[in-house]
Amino acid sequence: MTKKTLRPRFRVFRGREIAIGPGKADLLKAISETGSINQAARKLNMSYMRAWKLIRTMNVCFRHPVIVASRGGKKKGGTQLTPSGTRILELYQRLETESIQATNKIWKQLLQELR
Amino acid sequence: MTKKTLRPRFRVFRGREIAIGPGKADLLKAISETGSINQAARKLNMSYMRAWKLIRTMNVCFRHPVIVASRGGKKKGGTQLTPSGTRILELYQRLETESIQATNKIWKQLLQELR
Repeated sequence: MTKKTLRPRFRVFRGREIAIGPGKADLLKAISETGSINQAARKLNMSYMRAWKLIRTMNVCFRHPVIVASRGGKKKGGTQLTPSGTRILELYQRLETESIQATNKIWKQLLQELR
Repeated sequence: MTKKTLRPRFRVFRGREIAIGPGKADLLKAISETGSINQAARKLNMSYMRAWKLIRTMNVCFRHPVIVASRGGKKKGGTQLTPSGTRILELYQRLETESIQATNKIWKQLLQELR
């Protein structure tokens, strides 16, 4: 049977800029997992320049920077999400999970219409 | 003050095909408003060929055709949504409205983070 899926995608606009959307959220997640912008970019098949551009846009749109260079310790020279970056990513992810829950009944009705 | 908006976009996948998403929903809406594929396509700055391609995909993905040629009456030669097409469009629109309601609290928290 053909797989049927419902995919919500949220975009937060500040004027014409996308403060955060699927691509920027993926980047924040990959940075938090890898501790490195370089590795995060590679993981997402994105150039380092592109990753920086997305980060710059987030830093312009949000009150506080989303990442910080981590000094010393095991992650010397690495990059971490700031508390603000972590909160923004978490809120973004909750947009998707809560909207999937909220639309479950409608989705079941749409499934009836699909072949 | 810069305008801040949250935009949800849903895509319904049947396998790799998008059965319905923002573009196809806009097309169904424009057809229901104009009673014509041609006028609907023009309204959306879309070629007639493109509009037909989107309709074909919907007709493949859904159990019943989404549009029907209307004969006779005032709308002679026009095109209407079928009952199924009308229901699909309505369900799709409800995905957006219900997810906006459900994510309202999260959105208010995200607004706090925005500059």
